Amino acid sequence: MNPAPSVSYSFTLRLRIRNKPGMLARVLGVIAARRGDPGAVDLVRGDRNFKTRDLTVSARDEAHAEQIHRAIGELRGVEVLHVSDRVFLMHLGGKIRVQNRFPLATRDTLSMAYTPGVARVCLAIAEDKGKADVFTIKRNSVAVVSDGSSVLGLGNIGPEAAMPVMEGKAMLFKEFADIDAWPLCLKTQDAEEIVRAVRWMATGFGGINLEDISAPRCFQIEEELRKSLDIPVFHDDQHGTAIVVLAATLNALKVVRKRLRDVKILIAGAGAAGVATVRILRSAGARHILCCDRKGLVGRHRLPDLDFSKAWLARHTNPDNLRGSIEEAARGADLFIGVSGPGIFPVRALKRMAKDPVVFALANPVPEILPEEAGRYARIVATGRSDYPNQINNVLAFPGVFRGALDARAREINDAMNLAAAHAIAGCVAPEELGEECVVPSLFNKQVAHRVAYAVETAARATRVARKSRA
Amino acid sequence: MNPAPSVSYSFTLRLRIRNKPGMLARVLGVIAARRGDPGAVDLVRGDRNFKTRDLTVSARDEAHAEQIHRAIGELRGVEVLHVSDRVFLMHLGGKIRVQNRFPLATRDTLSMAYTPGVARVCLAIAEDKGKADVFTIKRNSVAVVSDGSSVLGLGNIGPEAAMPVMEGKAMLFKEFADIDAWPLCLKTQDAEEIVRAVRWMATGFGGINLEDISAPRCFQIEEELRKSLDIPVFHDDQHGTAIVVLAATLNALKVVRKRLRDVKILIAGAGAAGVATVRILRSAGARHILCCDRKGLVGRHRLPDLDFSKAWLARHTNPDNLRGSIEEAARGADLFIGVSGPGIFPVRALKRMAKDPVVFALANPVPEILPEEAGRYARIVATGRSDYPNQINNVLAFPGVFRGALDARAREINDAMNLAAAHAIAGCVAPEELGEECVVPSLFNKQVAHRVAYAVETAARATRVARKSRA
Repeated sequence: MNPAPSVSYSFTLRLRIRNKPGMLARVLGVIAARRGDPGAVDLVRGDRNFKTRDLTVSARDEAHAEQIHRAIGELRGVEVLHVSDRVFLMHLGGKIRVQNRFPLATRDTLSMAYTPGVARVCLAIAEDKGKADVFTIKRNSVAVVSDGSSVLGLGNIGPEAAMPVMEGKAMLFKEFADIDAWPLCLKTQDAEEIVRAVRWMATGFGGINLEDISAPRCFQIEEELRKSLDIPVFHDDQHGTAIVVLAATLNALKVVRKRLRDVKILIAGAGAAGVATVRILRSAGARHILCCDRKGLVGRHRLPDLDFSKAWLARHTNPDNLRGSIEEAARGADLFIGVSGPGIFPVRALKRMAKDPVVFALANPVPEILPEEAGRYARIVATGRSDYPNQINNVLAFPGVFRGALDARAREINDAMNLAAAHAIAGCVAPEELGEECVVPSLFNKQVAHRVAYAVETAARATRVARKSRA
Repeated sequence: MNPAPSVSYSFTLRLRIRNKPGMLARVLGVIAARRGDPGAVDLVRGDRNFKTRDLTVSARDEAHAEQIHRAIGELRGVEVLHVSDRVFLMHLGGKIRVQNRFPLATRDTLSMAYTPGVARVCLAIAEDKGKADVFTIKRNSVAVVSDGSSVLGLGNIGPEAAMPVMEGKAMLFKEFADIDAWPLCLKTQDAEEIVRAVRWMATGFGGINLEDISAPRCFQIEEELRKSLDIPVFHDDQHGTAIVVLAATLNALKVVRKRLRDVKILIAGAGAAGVATVRILRSAGARHILCCDRKGLVGRHRLPDLDFSKAWLARHTNPDNLRGSIEEAARGADLFIGVSGPGIFPVRALKRMAKDPVVFALANPVPEILPEEAGRYARIVATGRSDYPNQINNVLAFPGVFRGALDARAREINDAMNLAAAHAIAGCVAPEELGEECVVPSLFNKQVAHRVAYAVETAARATRVARKSRA
């Protein structure tokens, strides 16, 4: 399912190799035979008899890496001294740091940035709390909050294990939008406790990014925080995904020349992303949406058994109250959006779709249907993965969305701002680039965050949730 | 009470001055006449008729600054275009930032630092939570937590207004100990809520620094957090102050050739700092301690009216259950330690002290007794201020204490570690430097944090609260 070697499984082997012609070639031969991907080769030291070399190899997965190491170790004249995992090395000591904006090296700076000078700034804020947006980190800070209950595709791995993802998220905020984000992984999965903890500690932040919190608790947590806080609260697994899905949808429909209001959309997955995707598609004008979970089509017929978020789906999708499996639901669909699990959308279901089917199979790392299979029947295929065209990744949305919200000092991030973000992302694909293999811009297109920020800031002003006029 | 101009009241005036010889001299004359302290003069632009200049002036306080501005504005041929407050300018947008340890500019780094590579690090931590100390920011991160209930000498100014202080604290952690500290100002002053919020959000931190939380809640909060968390919890207003006071005491007693076990110590202030100072002095061997609050000597006679922390003081100081005012209590005292409020220790009280009296008047910015007055009778005077010798400042303690605790991966910061820190600070004053005007090292002595860290780390190992052997 993960056929190509990847840097996310790359290792540096320290090898002690007998100093004899052809030895390195033999090592590389073993790697090639096992379809590993060799990288840099560095000489550490050497003498007449032996050479010590660091050799980087990418593998498909851990088992594959293990096979390669073992095969190299079995070569005569080669000893594996040490294997270091590049991904783990990169995580040593964590991925972010705090930086002082200026050094505190002199008495004068100390007297101004700390006591006694700081007291005047404190008093100014005590008199007018709004000044905290000007004279503290608040105006550029976002808390990345998770309880570790639904991390990536890994499930409920807990707050400690969620930290590397949240640090990564903070890095993305910094890299793409120059936002100072700090990860806060909460050691409770009780929705009410989470709401309280976040309410209390929100003071120093200009926004809250909820992350990897499982449904349906995530809806309740977001809603209660939105009610009690006057800064944006954004659950990225919901809204970030929904924004990028809408952006991809807008562009894909241009390619297949269909209109959003006319197309039939089938969504697999009734969790955080599914619900938010339904919401944003409806706001954008979609009218024909069906949604499936593991038990098949969600509809009013299942109301007695549904939690509040799925009940909302039952009431706002599937107006004809259709029943059946995902395969049955696929009949005549123009667009399939998978935000669920691996392999749940079979080729035979895809074959039932309307002409020029569009397939967004976003489960990660293993999509609902493999692009190789989907590509034989679908006109457009998008995934969440970087190794296929059309990568639908939240990184396209959240940095710009928060940048815009912070710049406007927005009270919240509302539907209009989310829609504006989706249109801005879609607009980053130029007409001449647009096509089956390009319905979303590249993650590394630095224009995206800027354009999203501008659109979001403008929408915040238009909907009167901005507290600051444009600088 | 604040007689010298200070950079913490410094302003940059933009002046439009008629282009005529002697004009700038007149401006400087006005500043000198009003005893302001002129700094840099920059030419912004000039033409035949006018020159625009930026002139920096330090004043004693805001009223004084105002007087100077007005006097300059009244000069013929001078117009004040703009006044900018240098302290506020320095705080624009806050004082700290997040920094990525490496750029996320390529697909490869993104795949390793974020999805999909990060998943393997998450799984490793999910299997063994101890690995969070190795592969996340936890091992170098400290949360600076306040509820804004007792900020500097400003009192209960609330969490928003406390932010500049907590950011400053984070800067000090970075500057003096390369620790990544993030300020969390809590929007509740309910002790139980604070305990819960901090417990939940402690996951990603290697230590908790409580700051500016009023007594007696601070004792309860610290104690409950110490019980429920397996990382150090340190209330700086208590322990940081106590450590530096003990360090100064050890050195002062060397100068006056008295022994800690023999001296009579009078402490003014029965709040966070007072209680912690009593504790550490007792641990260090002091036996004769009296403590006063606003109502006079604390003793068992007052037990019915005392909260739990003052009741502890009543039981652990003043064994003869003496009563009376601070003035009466001062009779025969060798050392006065003020951690209370401005001007509460009158000269007539000081005169009653034993031979070679030592006075630590630490209230800030206005001490319990002014050094000018105390110096006439006391052999050694220390304050919390930078404009007199012997500045007793927590910056000497907390960076090194946390550095040592983090390096040892200590479960807690215990009394032995605090004592070790005090001895290390005292030891940073070389025998040939030691004297009436030098009982504590300079804040800018970069050796202090290193030596404190080493001593604290060693004490953590000796008392078996370290979870990591020395690297």
